[in-house]
Amino acid sequence: MTGQRLEITPIGHVTTSFTDLSAVPSQASESTQSTGTVVLRKDLVDALLGLDRYPFLWLVTWLHQGGDEPAPLQCVPRAKEAEGKTQGVFASRSPRRPNSIGLSLVRQLQVVDNTIAFAGVDLIDGTPVLDIKPWFEDCDLPPS
Amino acid sequence: MTGQRLEITPIGHVTTSFTDLSAVPSQASESTQSTGTVVLRKDLVDALLGLDRYPFLWLVTWLHQGGDEPAPLQCVPRAKEAEGKTQGVFASRSPRRPNSIGLSLVRQLQVVDNTIAFAGVDLIDGTPVLDIKPWFEDCDLPPS
Repeated sequence: MTGQRLEITPIGHVTTSFTDLSAVPSQASESTQSTGTVVLRKDLVDALLGLDRYPFLWLVTWLHQGGDEPAPLQCVPRAKEAEGKTQGVFASRSPRRPNSIGLSLVRQLQVVDNTIAFAGVDLIDGTPVLDIKPWFEDCDLPPS
Repeated sequence: MTGQRLEITPIGHVTTSFTDLSAVPSQASESTQSTGTVVLRKDLVDALLGLDRYPFLWLVTWLHQGGDEPAPLQCVPRAKEAEGKTQGVFASRSPRRPNSIGLSLVRQLQVVDNTIAFAGVDLIDGTPVLDIKPWFEDCDLPPS
């Protein structure tokens, strides 16, 4: 399958207070008090049943604001683990990567109709959402 | 952007010992001893620099074996949290979802050229890989 193009249609988008990319926190964990909303496509609303029982959600997004140039393969990440060294983008959480997929862990606040209010915003207003998954300790914590 | 189709080219694929979908563990955490390999496209090898310093990685994949029928919007998840109740697929980790995006937390074993050996396999042989990210406590743990 390598090299075959896939077509993906976003399931919705987020509305947030960030309209300037330079103001967006680099991680949701840096911004736990700010709130946003996922606006799901109305034809998918039945897929939200039971989501309100999960306090933390993954938003898989498409970081569409990176520009049209191909992403560089290396960068100097801001994460403290990188110690200021140039690294491959797959060793970073840089939003500029070969596929501009974002992964944000957010706190679910309320599900109403086709909207999900959440806290912990690292996304610019209008960011397309590709998937939503519950955060599960079983799946999402490294074995200690 | 909602409704706009995106074109995504996989960055590579996995090789695993699972060739029969019914034998694939539902989560990497159920299969921590089994090993697999990410085979990255050779044009992206520079993006792996420094990856070997991170013990745990996210593989963002395309779960291509679900069939051509549209995914159902609701399912009865296997996760114990669901208690056998019908739920929306966004409240589940079901591989059958509107966009067939998988999220697997794996243990990095060795990076050699354009390959990453890993432990914790919940993917069928040949699954396309869309992105690789390091697991970071800062980003990927809910605030306690």
